[in-house]
Formats: sequence, C-alpha cells, structure tokens
Amino acid sequence: MGVPQNLCTSCGKPLFARYDLKEAARTLTPQSLTTRGKSLWRYREVLPVRKDEDIVTLGEGWTPMLHVPRLGAKLGMERLYIKDESQNPTQSFKARGMTGAVSMAKQYGLKKLAVPSAGNAAGALAAYAARAGIEAHIFMPADTPQANIIECRETGAHVTLINGLITDCGMEVAKRKAAEGWFDVSTLKEPFRVEGKKTLGYELAEQLDWKLPDAVLYPTGGGTGLIGMWKAFDEMQQMGWIGSERPRLYTIQASGCAPIVRAFEEGKRFADEFPNAATKASGLRVPKAIGDFLMLDALRASGGGVVAVPDEEMIQAVRELGSAEGIFAAPEGAACYAALKHLRAQNVIRADEQAVIFNTGAGVKYLECFHD
Amino acid sequence: MGVPQNLCTSCGKPLFARYDLKEAARTLTPQSLTTRGKSLWRYREVLPVRKDEDIVTLGEGWTPMLHVPRLGAKLGMERLYIKDESQNPTQSFKARGMTGAVSMAKQYGLKKLAVPSAGNAAGALAAYAARAGIEAHIFMPADTPQANIIECRETGAHVTLINGLITDCGMEVAKRKAAEGWFDVSTLKEPFRVEGKKTLGYELAEQLDWKLPDAVLYPTGGGTGLIGMWKAFDEMQQMGWIGSERPRLYTIQASGCAPIVRAFEEGKRFADEFPNAATKASGLRVPKAIGDFLMLDALRASGGGVVAVPDEEMIQAVRELGSAEGIFAAPEGAACYAALKHLRAQNVIRADEQAVIFNTGAGVKYLECFHD
Ligand SMILES: Cc1ncc(COP(=O)(O)O)c(C=O)c1O
Ligand SMILES: Cc1ncc(COP(=O)(O)O)c(C=O)c1O
Repeated sequence: MGVPQNLCTSCGKPLFARYDLKEAARTLTPQSLTTRGKSLWRYREVLPVRKDEDIVTLGEGWTPMLHVPRLGAKLGMERLYIKDESQNPTQSFKARGMTGAVSMAKQYGLKKLAVPSAGNAAGALAAYAARAGIEAHIFMPADTPQANIIECRETGAHVTLINGLITDCGMEVAKRKAAEGWFDVSTLKEPFRVEGKKTLGYELAEQLDWKLPDAVLYPTGGGTGLIGMWKAFDEMQQMGWIGSERPRLYTIQASGCAPIVRAFEEGKRFADEFPNAATKASGLRVPKAIGDFLMLDALRASGGGVVAVPDEEMIQAVRELGSAEGIFAAPEGAACYAALKHLRAQNVIRADEQAVIFNTGAGVKYLECFHD
Repeated sequence: MGVPQNLCTSCGKPLFARYDLKEAARTLTPQSLTTRGKSLWRYREVLPVRKDEDIVTLGEGWTPMLHVPRLGAKLGMERLYIKDESQNPTQSFKARGMTGAVSMAKQYGLKKLAVPSAGNAAGALAAYAARAGIEAHIFMPADTPQANIIECRETGAHVTLINGLITDCGMEVAKRKAAEGWFDVSTLKEPFRVEGKKTLGYELAEQLDWKLPDAVLYPTGGGTGLIGMWKAFDEMQQMGWIGSERPRLYTIQASGCAPIVRAFEEGKRFADEFPNAATKASGLRVPKAIGDFLMLDALRASGGGVVAVPDEEMIQAVRELGSAEGIFAAPEGAACYAALKHLRAQNVIRADEQAVIFNTGAGVKYLECFHD
C-alpha cells in the first residue's frame, strides 16, 4: 500500500488489498468486538490505512440489522431481515466505500479526487472529501436524482452533469484526469472502496451471531458490496471465525438495466454492456461493470442466482415495505423485496430459511419517483 | 404508567415519567454500557415500556459525536463537536421521541395515533407506527417540505395537509380526536416522546467520557430535546454519574419565528405566540410551545442564552458547514453554527471552551431550500 494504484498495470483488472490475517486475528476477535466503537472501523485490523489519524470518518457502518416479521409474514417467512444501510452518513452504503478510499487518499497525500457516479457514490465522495479537506470532482448523469446533485454542491464538490450514463461519466474522468491531476476513485478501479464495502460481510456475520444467513439479496450495480462481502467471508474463514459455509448470494437488478442477470442466465463469465439502460433505481443504472466476472463467479460459487425487477414493481414495493415495517427504502432496496416475492413463489428461497435484504439507501433521496 | 395519559388533568401542564433511580443504578452503570447495543435503548432502565417485546425500534439513537476541527478553526475553537442526528431512522432526532411514544402506545394497546407536525416528527411517527402496526394520522402545514409528505405516504400514514401552521394542525387534531378515537402524541402532550429525547443528554455525557461540555447549541421548536436533556442531567446526577455542573444551554431559533428568544430577552417565564411565523427551517416554525416555561427555566438555570438567525444566514451556513466537514445539515442544525459565529464574536462562548452543536436532521430532506 505504498503508492496510489488504480487497475493492475499488467492485466487491467481490479487490485485487492491483502492482510496478514494471522497477525490480525491476534487482536481482532469476536470477543474483542463486544466493546469496540460503533463504526465499520471496529474491524480496524482488516482495513487499510497505516495511521489512525489518516482515517476520514463520519461515523459510517454498524447499521441496524432489523428483523422484519410483518414483511416476512407476507411471504410466509419468519426469519426475514433488512440491513438498513440508509442510516449511514449521506444515507447510503456508499459511505462505506468512500471512508476507505478517501482515508487512503489522505494517507497518500492526494489533493484531487474524481469519480463517475450513478448518484449516491457522488454524495458520499463529496462528503468524505470535504471532511478530509480534499477536492472532489464529480461526474453524474444529468437526470440523476436532485438530492444527489444538491448534496454534492452543499458539501462543496465540483459537479459536472453529463448527458449520458455512468459509463459516459467514467470516460470523461478517464479523458481528463491526467491533465487535471485527479486521482480516479471509480469503484474497483482503486483498491479501497471494496475494502470499506466488505465490512457489510463482517457485520452480516457479527449481527447474526456468527452464523451467516441462508440467502442474501443485494441490489447490484458495480457490485462492489457483493465482491467485498465475498472477500470478507474468506477472510473470516481464514481467521477461524466461520467455516466454509456461505450464504447464497442473489443479484437483483432492474429489468431496464440487467447486464449481470443476463450474463448469469446465459452462462457467461463476462457481461455484455446492457443497451439503452434505463431505470428509476439510479444506483442500478450501470450497464457495464468492471467487476462483472468477480460477481458472476461469486454468485455461482455460492449457489445463488439473479432476478430482474421492473420499475413499477419496485416502486410499489417501496410502499409495501414502508407500510409494513416503517422503512422508507430506496428503490434499489425495495427491488430486493420485490425479487424475494418471485424467489418465494418459485420456492428458490424456502419459507423456513433465513434471508437478508440489503436496503442500500434512503427512499427520501428519490423524491422524483414518488410524486403523485 | 398504567393508562395512557395526555396533559395533567388538573393543571393542564405536561406530565413526566419518574423512575426508581436507585434501583436503575444497580444495573445501569457507565461500565455496563460498554458492552450494550448501539441504540438509545441501551439506557433501558431509565426508559419506559414494561416488556421488551413492546419496544418498537428501527435502530435509533447512539448517533456519532463528531469532532469538527476544520469548522472549529474558522471560529478559533479546537473543541467543537457536532452530534449528527441525521443518522437516525427517518433522518432526524424525532425518531428518538417516537420510539418512546409508539412503544408505549403498543404497551397500552392503542390502535390509532394522531400528531400535528412541522415535518420530521410526522415522518418519524409514520415510520414507528407502521413498524408497530398502528394507524398514524398526520397533520402538517401544506407547505411542509415534500420529503416529509412523501415519507409519510410511503410508510402508510394518513396524511392531511392544512393551510396554516403547526398550531392550526394541533387544533384540528384536538377537535377531531374524540370522535375518531385517536390518541394525541403531540410533543409534551404525552409523557414519552420526551423520555426518548432525553437520551440525547445521556449520549452527550457518555460520548464525552462523562464530562459534559461547556456549551450546547440546540435548534428549538417545541423544545422537547432541551427539556429532555435537562431531565437526563438530573437523573444522571441522582445516579451519581455526574456532579451538579451543567452545560450552558443555548436555544437557537429562526428570526422569522423566535418566541423563546423573545421571551428570554424580555425576562418572561411564558412565551407569547409569535405572530406570522415564517422560516425555511420548518422544524423551527413553532410559534407557541406548551413547554415554553420549562425551556426558559432550563436556559436560565444553565446560564445559557438565545440567538435568532435569519434564514439567509442559516442557508449559507449549510454550505459552509458541509464544505468544511462533509455533513449536509438540516437548516435547523446549520442555524446553530450560524448562531455560534455570533456567540463567538461576542465571546459569549470562548475559544477554549468545548461546544456541541446538535445537527437535528438531514439537509437532504429540505431540497426546496437549495434549488438554484
Ligand atoms: C442505493 C444503491 N443501491 C445499490 C447500488 C449498487 O451498488 P454497487 O455498485 O456496489 O453494486 C447503488 C449504486 O449507486 C446505490 O446507490
Ligand atoms: C430538524 C429539526 N430540528 C429541530 C426541531 C425542533 O425540535 P423541538 O421541537 O424538539 O424543539 C425540529 C422539529 O420539528 C426538527 O425537525
């Protein structure tokens, strides 16, 4: 971790941080966690950043794992849970990745960061960069929810709106970064957002008393959380905290942008770019992901699967979930509940199984979806 | 706590819950807290609700206490902190009160709750009522931020918009509640919202290592948090956790609606209704508060004071605070920073003192304030 790195310079694929897990496990134990602080930095030994004073934090992580019996009952399930990531700083799980990436940027002494974003990653980068005193240059589709655009401006970021998709924003960053002196923190194009996101996997285990659930439903764009969790499971196994069992991972996407769903169903290892990507769940509007093969490998190895959900179903699911349990979920999170209905109808997830839905963001950031 | 109660039936003033603090202090100790769960229910022994299974929770409380050195430096202060209440369920500190009130409503077997709200209390009641399977009937000014109206609908509440202020909404609830069978959970008109809110005081002490700060800046509408904190300090003193020292409490209001500021300055114990109340900080648009004398007594006893902030200043303060620290605060929270500038200019709060600003909500719920 000596110098800033983006993709592997020989193969062009993502790089991952590795730890001396034997050393880590000497101080980081399930027992030690009972008295640690309430943020994802409780897993300090398996996170990057050399010196504590470089950690850039707003109190992210350790979000509630809520048992949702009323929602579960609609599907005949007693053991349904929602991990409520809307209770993070900037109201989404993107805070986890950005605390990792921006802390490392601070360690490296970087002064200008740039990111293409579908929306919530932008808000998170803007916040963590401000907290660190680093410039944030943000590129978003012009039709990103207003909340994302406004939160970036109010936390002092430089915002450019692009007539196009996140992939077009990514090309703009790639084109300009050398001349502007920006470091690119696109997801999986630097190694530390996934480190922050992997704490989802640690919390999943810790909050369920070190017994992983049968199934996990994850709304998938770039897939960093999924890939991160998969890494966390391996690390926990190597530290002797869990065995070789894994939850079945389910990727949930929008029917209007479902590249991973399509590749999974076609038995491919890499996903084609999804044409004319369109969905109200802006976080799922990612037509092409650099970590596609990592996701597809993990989905298959876990014995999991995929579901594509039409926008109407997910928007309706927001209100169903909200009325049953009081959680005003992002469309992305609600899409997982909509998908679970299908998986239950086919008995792919059984009534007696334990399932966890990731509500990755707050519905309140998507007002455009709910105007009468 | 045997039967549901509103105001005292003999004097028409608020009722407060009392605990056997000697008994509570046997199991609830600063030491015991180190291993307790990260929600306000960690203070179980000094909270109402008989049986644990009646607790209606979404994981509220135990929000981060963030040191904000960059913001502090603008005012020459090294020990400035923000308690970030936007990381609660429904993105505001109103969740604290509602987990208390709705849990007790569940204990009592109530089926229909009603509330007049300036906005965030509405969203919180809607969420907690949904979580409990109880009906929520909500009355808000028609010009309440869209986010509040939409969050209530998406969590299944019955929403009525009133052309008027929160006081008009309160009159509507009072008029209809008997016929409709609603229980009125207006703040301080039932005893348990303040019990939830008082945990702000417990957390303040615990997160600052049991040494209360010199000054607390609190954006004040109905004042439930202020009154609750004051109660918490007394309880902690009775349990032997702190001495008789208290922070100086500062009530921050909007220039367009500053009844407590005016009464304080005029040396009155009760506040007159503020005429033509108007401010973008919707949570501060409370022209008349039933707990006025409780606030004014506490402000005076603490040696604190008051500041009224014009809307332009608080909206500008949002971006200043956001750019310095990455916290996109509600206008109410940012108003406290704007007020602190005045208090520093007059050296009412000194450079070497420790001060805590309550950011009571998320800026993202106030998009109307930030359109270009
Ligand atoms: C709310 C929300 N959910 C899910 C996603 C997809 O996350 P990932 O790119 O890690 O797959 C995003 C990405 O922007 C998001 O904002
Ligand atoms: C964000 C915010 N801050 C402050 C207040 C005022 O709180 P209180 O009524 O407890 O004084 C409110 C009330 O609605 C609010 O929503």
